[in-house]
Amino acid sequence: MAGCGMSWLKILGAVIVGALLLTVGILLGHFAIPKGGNGQGAPSWMQTVGRDLSESLLQSFMDQVESGKIRENLKSLASQPHMATTKGDEELVKLLLSRWQDPQIGLDSASEDVYGVFLSFPDPQRPNSVAVVENSSQIFSTRRSEKNVTADQAHADVVQPYAAYAPPGNPRGRLVYANQGKHSDYQELVNMGIDLNGTIAITRYGGAGRAAKAVNGAEFGVAGVVVYTDPADINDGRASEEETYPNSWYMPPSGVERGSYNGYFGDLLTPYYPAKEFTYRIKESEIQGIPPIPTQPIGFEDAQTLICDVQVNVHNQRVIKNSSNVMGFIRGSEEPDRYVLYGNHRDSWVHGAIDPSSGTAVMLEITRVLGKMLKEGTWRPRRSIIFGSWGAEEFGLIGSTEYTEEFYSKLRERSVAYINVDISVFANATLRAQGTPPAQSVIFAAAKQVQTPASSSVSVYDNWRNHFNRISPSYGVIPNLGSLGAGSDYASFIHYLGITSMDIAYTYDRNKTSARIYPAYHTAFDTFDYADRFIDPGFTSHQAVARTAGNVLLRLADSLVLPLNVSDYGEKLEELYSVAAQGDFLANLTVNNLSLDPLKTVIGRFKSVAADFNQRVTKLKEEESPSPLQIRMVNDQIMLLERAFLNPQAFPNKYYYSHVIWASKSSDEATFPGLADAYTSALETGDWDQVRKHLTIVVQAVESAASALEAMA
Amino acid sequence: MAGCGMSWLKILGAVIVGALLLTVGILLGHFAIPKGGNGQGAPSWMQTVGRDLSESLLQSFMDQVESGKIRENLKSLASQPHMATTKGDEELVKLLLSRWQDPQIGLDSASEDVYGVFLSFPDPQRPNSVAVVENSSQIFSTRRSEKNVTADQAHADVVQPYAAYAPPGNPRGRLVYANQGKHSDYQELVNMGIDLNGTIAITRYGGAGRAAKAVNGAEFGVAGVVVYTDPADINDGRASEEETYPNSWYMPPSGVERGSYNGYFGDLLTPYYPAKEFTYRIKESEIQGIPPIPTQPIGFEDAQTLICDVQVNVHNQRVIKNSSNVMGFIRGSEEPDRYVLYGNHRDSWVHGAIDPSSGTAVMLEITRVLGKMLKEGTWRPRRSIIFGSWGAEEFGLIGSTEYTEEFYSKLRERSVAYINVDISVFANATLRAQGTPPAQSVIFAAAKQVQTPASSSVSVYDNWRNHFNRISPSYGVIPNLGSLGAGSDYASFIHYLGITSMDIAYTYDRNKTSARIYPAYHTAFDTFDYADRFIDPGFTSHQAVARTAGNVLLRLADSLVLPLNVSDYGEKLEELYSVAAQGDFLANLTVNNLSLDPLKTVIGRFKSVAADFNQRVTKLKEEESPSPLQIRMVNDQIMLLERAFLNPQAFPNKYYYSHVIWASKSSDEATFPGLADAYTSALETGDWDQVRKHLTIVVQAVESAASALEAMA
Repeated sequence: MAGCGMSWLKILGAVIVGALLLTVGILLGHFAIPKGGNGQGAPSWMQTVGRDLSESLLQSFMDQVESGKIRENLKSLASQPHMATTKGDEELVKLLLSRWQDPQIGLDSASEDVYGVFLSFPDPQRPNSVAVVENSSQIFSTRRSEKNVTADQAHADVVQPYAAYAPPGNPRGRLVYANQGKHSDYQELVNMGIDLNGTIAITRYGGAGRAAKAVNGAEFGVAGVVVYTDPADINDGRASEEETYPNSWYMPPSGVERGSYNGYFGDLLTPYYPAKEFTYRIKESEIQGIPPIPTQPIGFEDAQTLICDVQVNVHNQRVIKNSSNVMGFIRGSEEPDRYVLYGNHRDSWVHGAIDPSSGTAVMLEITRVLGKMLKEGTWRPRRSIIFGSWGAEEFGLIGSTEYTEEFYSKLRERSVAYINVDISVFANATLRAQGTPPAQSVIFAAAKQVQTPASSSVSVYDNWRNHFNRISPSYGVIPNLGSLGAGSDYASFIHYLGITSMDIAYTYDRNKTSARIYPAYHTAFDTFDYADRFIDPGFTSHQAVARTAGNVLLRLADSLVLPLNVSDYGEKLEELYSVAAQGDFLANLTVNNLSLDPLKTVIGRFKSVAADFNQRVTKLKEEESPSPLQIRMVNDQIMLLERAFLNPQAFPNKYYYSHVIWASKSSDEATFPGLADAYTSALETGDWDQVRKHLTIVVQAVESAASALEAMA
Repeated sequence: MAGCGMSWLKILGAVIVGALLLTVGILLGHFAIPKGGNGQGAPSWMQTVGRDLSESLLQSFMDQVESGKIRENLKSLASQPHMATTKGDEELVKLLLSRWQDPQIGLDSASEDVYGVFLSFPDPQRPNSVAVVENSSQIFSTRRSEKNVTADQAHADVVQPYAAYAPPGNPRGRLVYANQGKHSDYQELVNMGIDLNGTIAITRYGGAGRAAKAVNGAEFGVAGVVVYTDPADINDGRASEEETYPNSWYMPPSGVERGSYNGYFGDLLTPYYPAKEFTYRIKESEIQGIPPIPTQPIGFEDAQTLICDVQVNVHNQRVIKNSSNVMGFIRGSEEPDRYVLYGNHRDSWVHGAIDPSSGTAVMLEITRVLGKMLKEGTWRPRRSIIFGSWGAEEFGLIGSTEYTEEFYSKLRERSVAYINVDISVFANATLRAQGTPPAQSVIFAAAKQVQTPASSSVSVYDNWRNHFNRISPSYGVIPNLGSLGAGSDYASFIHYLGITSMDIAYTYDRNKTSARIYPAYHTAFDTFDYADRFIDPGFTSHQAVARTAGNVLLRLADSLVLPLNVSDYGEKLEELYSVAAQGDFLANLTVNNLSLDPLKTVIGRFKSVAADFNQRVTKLKEEESPSPLQIRMVNDQIMLLERAFLNPQAFPNKYYYSHVIWASKSSDEATFPGLADAYTSALETGDWDQVRKHLTIVVQAVESAASALEAMA
């Protein structure tokens, strides 16, 4: 059988071929045939359930944000006055809907939600005025409208200056100067021996809320209130025509700040319920916190003319009108039942180029880029995104509040965070952000990835830290994240629903101006021209805000683990605690047999539990392929932390306020709000029981928060 | 090159070998090498994330439930009096802890939670009494204790009969019979010309709550209240010694029903906050709903002796004492952050064999079997299970309420359902279950799998349907699931937290007895002997309850999709609506310009949305391997449906009640409670605005519920 035997070489070759075939087979078997139960394919959700934020997509988003588009948006948005429920507002509703329903750059869907809300308007036939009278003849009357300087002011739809919700009436009396109209301001006049009964108080903006100036005055017998803008407060002292708009950003002498004279927020007739047709409305006489006496704002030109006896003539009318929110939706791919909310109001007082259209222009640019990626099929967020263009904010955050009332339950259970960008650019010096502590980490992460308009080598984060900073016990010198009050549409999200909220804008260099706010605020001079020439020529600050806020939005919507650092709450709790735990505050507590020990203990517990939580999250993130339910569990803990601070019983007399850490307060003590108010009140009344009660409320809230972050057994 | 060419045969052989090698490779590659990212193993959670209820395990659980073990449990539990916070109670705390921490049959862990709660006890040195007095001499006094018939009554720790929270005092006055002490009962006496001032009212149990008898009486000037048990109400008329215990289940003439005279629930000094050391306590004078005048319960033997002038001598003392909950935990394997809660109170008035130890005996048998499976490694639930042995229930559901206050936020976010089994066997005729509508489906499913004690061929479900049934528009004749009031520890779970709750027991054949409740209730005759001889000889009804409740528990803990049918709420909403939408109710609404149309519309919307939801769930369940996040999403919708009905603003004057569908009401109208009360009140006062308001509240609640079940975009 010799001759044709296989040589070793051949055998070797066959073995190699065989091995190759086996290997190819193994590879094919392993990689080419999908695995799954019952020999079928692996479930398709396996491919996406662990999807995380894509940094390249984030970069691509930011690259696509164009300043020129934002400028175009603003030009359209501010082309005419668009006060809530007016024709201009209705046209913007259509604009928003058409953008968000656009086949190329639209969202998944958009809708218009209508509420019948209680508003207040001046009577076009009978203009309000403040008149100087001598005997029975009028020797001077304030102007009916602002001076026409850029044609915008002559638009037929410019609303005359007025104090929304101030009652009509024509009180006449001696004029007294009551500073800012604070309670203490009126008290001081009385202490000086001045009889305020039947007087007209002239007050300047600032110090007290708008409505408070009249509410306080009425308590002292004042018959009418006039509110003016002091050039020292808003114009860095500039008061002449030459120094003001259209020659600079300062308010002209004829400028008048309009505003809502309303101490609460939401529709005044339907607290806690959406203002739908079927909804019960309280009586007008039951409304709290609006001026009980005629009140009228005027410009500083008129203010310096007023002397002796004046008459305030107010013809405002209250009326229920339909106001719309425009809502836009992008469905989440993996967790459609988790919502990231982004909103801004749509209504202005006049043209509202800065307030609010600078924010709407930014929102529309963000939705354009996201909508494009969505329609191209290159992106769909992990979680759902909801955009809100709120109506009737200027009258008291009405649209956003009605929205939270209508969808209270759903929003409370499913909302990850709310991002508010109202006025996006006050000035172009630096970022300014407010928010609750968990928002800090995501805002910082975004701000580090955006360049400043001024220099591509400086990040928005570094520039921000240069302007506003603080020393953090955990991080050293960092930008100072401000606290949220109730000044824009985030109010009901944080105070009523307990949703982690934030507000983002570009703002002033405080070394360059001390203006209380940008000078054209709520006047007929807040126009596109004003924005284009003085606030942000080139719209690069708008672009920086769009990139930062959009970056935050994408991180919240796409990150596998929510990018909110819960342990940052510990620092805030310590800070609020430390105010009560020293000096007179502590001494007074001790004298009254009140101990801060339980509070100290529970804050310590919160910090330790939060640190453990973060360690567990870090370990989970390091896993090759973490369980989707484990991820969901920690995300739910992060999302719901803020809810654990809610207590609907804590502040029974304050509509909506139920977040124990952030509720409004009257006291100057910079500690927990309920504790601060109870303490200040106890100093006068001796009611230390209320202090004890509010200590319990705070301890219980912090304990709940700690408990919410604990490991599951 | 001829001669050594390979033959075709050889080539064929090589091809075959090659193909085999390739195939082996493919098979090895596909099956032998685990798949996963980066070529690593498939994540281990893939094996378990879709795990569903095991029917065979369920059957095994039920098979292991032994009536004999329950009997042993009850013998231990009821061996001595164990009123809240007494030595007997403390010993049961240890018993519970040792069972739940047992290495063979224990749970994952157990703990003792202590609260300092406000209780009321008689003074052992100065027994309370009701005495007949003539001039200044006492000619009769009620007995100090029940007659000793089985030695149990002579136990040193038997508490003398008293009305917990009734104030001390010795009022003396003419005795008047005031029926059940309802407001209308006293009013009738006044209408008959009887001056109630300074009288002692004798009232029988039933009709009005215990506290209400005294609260109402005090309004009419009554100085003291005596409460007795009428044999007609509790003993089917039997009143002699021969006819009563120890010769039958009926209450002996000396028997006295103790009880808490407390109109609310939870610790009275710390509403809304856990009664911890740091917690603020309101003043005793601020407590609402307890008797303002001395009150004392007596037996019917003594009741028939009372004539003319009597003196009520009450020496009760109020005190803050430590009361414990014992908590047991089993960690869920897949969803540890979802809780199924199961509880019963531990404290009794005396030996409490039936109330509550029959429930505790059942709970301990359930935990024994589950603990065994757990320790053997044959089972771990998908979701976490929490068992609660509540303290101080008899004084006003205190332990369970404090628990919900302390862990409000966590429980609200994570609880799937609460199962309460208090008195597990009132009598052995039929199952009796109460719950909110979503509980119906899971209770039915369980009841169908358990045999009745009487016959192995009849299911608990069929027997139940024979005893209590109704015609359902959706299902035809089905067992009637009762509504939850506030009679046991489910109260704060459903009313305050909005957690789907249920209460399960075995009970009477109403053709055989009309007893208001089992006759030894709250007396010294509620003993092991009583249970063993009269209530459930053989303990087979206890066993049926343990199997049914345990079956419900396992279904809730293990089912992939929660076995709660949300669409069953639609039927209840329709039923409540229909009461208002007809007859006088409707006529009065119409006259006052109030329309039910929005309510009708929104209930229709709820039903349609719920039906769609169920269809989506059915489709999802049919998928081979549904996405764990999709499953979690629908489970969260099911879990949180009940929460959508909560409104903390709806009933500002009723502690804890915030569930719009189930709040307490005073009106007899069987419609939505707020609407019913507002309507009844408007008939008197003409305040139809409140009716309008409560219509809004109901519409908004149902709308929220519908919205919570909607598809995610």
